Amino acid sequence: MALADTRFATRRRALAAKLAAQRIDSILVTSPIHVRYLSGFTGSNGALIVNKDLSAQICTDGRYTTQIAEEVPDIEAVIERASATALLSRVEGPRRVAIESAQTTLELLESLKEATPEDVDLIPVSGVVESIRLTKDNFELDRLREVAARASQAFEDLLAAGELAEGRSERQVAADLEYRMRMLGAERPSFDTIVASGPNSAKPHHGAGDRIIQHGDLVTIDFGAHARGFNSDMTRTLVMGAAGEFESEIYDIVLRAQLAGVEAAYAGANLIDIDAACRKIIEDAGYGEYFVHSTGHGIGLEVHEAPSASKTSQGVLETGSTLTIEPGIYVPGKGGVRIEDTLIITSGAPEIITKVSKDLIVV
Amino acid sequence: MALADTRFATRRRALAAKLAAQRIDSILVTSPIHVRYLSGFTGSNGALIVNKDLSAQICTDGRYTTQIAEEVPDIEAVIERASATALLSRVEGPRRVAIESAQTTLELLESLKEATPEDVDLIPVSGVVESIRLTKDNFELDRLREVAARASQAFEDLLAAGELAEGRSERQVAADLEYRMRMLGAERPSFDTIVASGPNSAKPHHGAGDRIIQHGDLVTIDFGAHARGFNSDMTRTLVMGAAGEFESEIYDIVLRAQLAGVEAAYAGANLIDIDAACRKIIEDAGYGEYFVHSTGHGIGLEVHEAPSASKTSQGVLETGSTLTIEPGIYVPGKGGVRIEDTLIITSGAPEIITKVSKDLIVV
Repeated sequence: MALADTRFATRRRALAAKLAAQRIDSILVTSPIHVRYLSGFTGSNGALIVNKDLSAQICTDGRYTTQIAEEVPDIEAVIERASATALLSRVEGPRRVAIESAQTTLELLESLKEATPEDVDLIPVSGVVESIRLTKDNFELDRLREVAARASQAFEDLLAAGELAEGRSERQVAADLEYRMRMLGAERPSFDTIVASGPNSAKPHHGAGDRIIQHGDLVTIDFGAHARGFNSDMTRTLVMGAAGEFESEIYDIVLRAQLAGVEAAYAGANLIDIDAACRKIIEDAGYGEYFVHSTGHGIGLEVHEAPSASKTSQGVLETGSTLTIEPGIYVPGKGGVRIEDTLIITSGAPEIITKVSKDLIVV
Repeated sequence: MALADTRFATRRRALAAKLAAQRIDSILVTSPIHVRYLSGFTGSNGALIVNKDLSAQICTDGRYTTQIAEEVPDIEAVIERASATALLSRVEGPRRVAIESAQTTLELLESLKEATPEDVDLIPVSGVVESIRLTKDNFELDRLREVAARASQAFEDLLAAGELAEGRSERQVAADLEYRMRMLGAERPSFDTIVASGPNSAKPHHGAGDRIIQHGDLVTIDFGAHARGFNSDMTRTLVMGAAGEFESEIYDIVLRAQLAGVEAAYAGANLIDIDAACRKIIEDAGYGEYFVHSTGHGIGLEVHEAPSASKTSQGVLETGSTLTIEPGIYVPGKGGVRIEDTLIITSGAPEIITKVSKDLIVV
């Protein structure tokens, strides 16, 4: 039997402490991401109960009997297809059992209610596991550094190989970048790769289409790699052949905004101030109306997770959390620029894990 | 303004008819897949209300103002970030408004309740949109044929190019296949590509790892392409160099089971009988314990959707629905075979849309 990895037990201990503060006896976890986070189990069907005395039970179906024994040697496993109801029906009351509001649908709640023993109360709770996930442990930070390094490497290799070139389609460039990430160990892109060229660069949510990249185009590439549960996210904007006056101007503004955002992102900073630091530079340059989204988001097991840095954010940034800084300017019909890094937050200068030059690259 | 595509109005009409039977006045749709299905809107944030008089409102945030006008010319659009609550708060009572149980979390329900006008009742409903999605319209069938054809082409091109070869890793083969699907127009794989070689072929849920493919290996490749909302799914098992007695035996059994499943899949057939048709052949050959999963599932906007053909399925197959037929034998330590096609169901012989030879391919 493999040795139990202590990081999962450490996370369950943190969870139990949070629950005790809310007079909860146990929590039933049903979302695959949270089951994986708290146990190490990577199968597609699983449920986990964590009790306040730190005992736990996990359940999956017969396809994963061998896998769950290997991945989760330290928790008693039940093998049954309806994993959540199977665990709940085994709870011995009286007990207050938490369920996660953000992950439990009304349909699941109905079947849970049917399986709940008489003296067990289901208590919906919000954001409990998320609050533990907010600050990453060393294992998670290493995984995030690794996946960001692979994505960065793939991007630099793409440029070195001349695969971003006039005459190629956005789709070809995206496919080449994804192939390189795959060969460097990614299981898939974290999200659909954006290669937005020329007028498409003015659309923040453009994908990668059939447009042929042309001389003078701005090309915004927003991409990430997913490996072993973790995600990366970065954006660079390049220019084909030579930058005109407009392209140079907005690139310079967005770069200054991005650097200001990075500088403002330290533990204890108000999230709203980080957004304001970016936004002010773009507004002062007269392009405020063209920065149409927020400044950044956390990243980890999900591509978008807490915290969020926007015009309406509340709260402060914490050591060990992650944040993207990704200001942009999008002028319809003319073009756009976005520059994005992922940061690990410390009490001093943040650690930038997307280590690709931000000088304007002329291809 | 683009002409409204009538297929969305047709679907909304079918939905309204279902709701009328349940004395529902309106339905609030919040899942991105269902919003897309009923309106054509492809953005990541959207909500839709369909009323019994066939009027409708749709809501998204400011990033999608242009896109929603282009994609949904026939429905009044509201621009607000909290799309579901924005629409609900505008409903004029008295009214019974359905919400989807399988797509509404307890967290969303809480915010919906706060936004619900006093004389409006929220009624959770299950499977209403899904029941319309079960039988595909001609537009959907064409999209499904197209995406399956592209995936099939990519697979045949991979073999013709010699990219499945001894000495290459599972990961390399998966990356090459995904690249080919991408270049043929797929936006991403429908799911993580499986390339399971040698002993890994005995694990139905293996991914694609670092194992080097060797002479004599069985190699199971299970893959799909996603394009414009729709998914494909197929599996072929090949043998490297030469098939031994064991490999030939289990391939022959699985192929006979698969052909029997296809033959049993006609409109009006009991779903449980389709599973039994496959399973009996494998059981009669003495490998029943090694067929560890069900026979098939529907596919469309989701990779796994209704119907399901398993040992416990209820109900009958309907014309215009889809079904995979994918029996397998998995002998731990020795190897496995799975063969999977996707079918469109008719009253006669089904239409197989994954048109790749099922003869045992020796590479």
